[in-house]
Amino acid sequence: MEEKVMKAIQDDYPADFAWCYGCGRLNEDGHHFRTGWQGENTITIYTPEKEHMALPGFVYGGVIASLIDCHGTGSAALALHRKNGHEVCDGTEPPRFVTASLKVDFVKPTPHGVPLKAVGTIHEVHPKKWRVDTEVYANDELCARGEVVAVVMPSTFLKK
Amino acid sequence: MEEKVMKAIQDDYPADFAWCYGCGRLNEDGHHFRTGWQGENTITIYTPEKEHMALPGFVYGGVIASLIDCHGTGSAALALHRKNGHEVCDGTEPPRFVTASLKVDFVKPTPHGVPLKAVGTIHEVHPKKWRVDTEVYANDELCARGEVVAVVMPSTFLKK
Repeated sequence: MEEKVMKAIQDDYPADFAWCYGCGRLNEDGHHFRTGWQGENTITIYTPEKEHMALPGFVYGGVIASLIDCHGTGSAALALHRKNGHEVCDGTEPPRFVTASLKVDFVKPTPHGVPLKAVGTIHEVHPKKWRVDTEVYANDELCARGEVVAVVMPSTFLKK
Repeated sequence: MEEKVMKAIQDDYPADFAWCYGCGRLNEDGHHFRTGWQGENTITIYTPEKEHMALPGFVYGGVIASLIDCHGTGSAALALHRKNGHEVCDGTEPPRFVTASLKVDFVKPTPHGVPLKAVGTIHEVHPKKWRVDTEVYANDELCARGEVVAVVMPSTFLKK
């Protein structure tokens, strides 16, 4: 049976932050990545669409990078939310993060047509800056490694 | 007047390598990134679609990472093709590259609704491995810096 993220931080993002092409629930054309806890790690599970190929049979690297990106900001939000004494879906608005940097090492060609599982390990750099190390698996094989440095969203992002 | 890439390496990729979601001319749903020479540099110009937002008004980082990714492999293909004595559209099949690693530093929020210009500087690591340093501009402002290590496509990618 396919794993599923039951409670995702993206379900809790306020509406103004729910339009992201990667993980925004309000973006009809987006990927709808959803990130939740799995023990002390975080996970995002995503099955690429048929057009998301590099070559027939293999997933496009830019989609893997996108998965790692939103998984990173979502994981940082989960971690700071928990540090602040909250959990997903407890009625409190979670913190919002943006990506400062993104790194991806493509370990092996990623097969298309199966769910990808991103597993994150979170490190606090300081309260407004978190690093998320991510491994992306297909069929339980490691296909990519990623690192995201996520920072609390500066207020300039929300200027009207 | 908007700049345009006249002769792009992706126009020359053989059909089996033209399905990439980022830069494949045969992928109907893809971004259709096109990369060509501009002096000793390479450029790719791309205007994100309306759904490619992080927040309303700003471009999604995963699309910027995708642009840097395909710009990197395309630039490496341009460089090795030239080193081999060929130019785009001279009737010779260009070499094909895949991404070994991708790094993006998001320098500032990237405004949505204007063309993005990726400018690449190419470094030969060895004949089958090239590094492409890329700057992404919107309205002539630097918004992101990227680095791609591209390697000549291993034959395992083309197994039937």
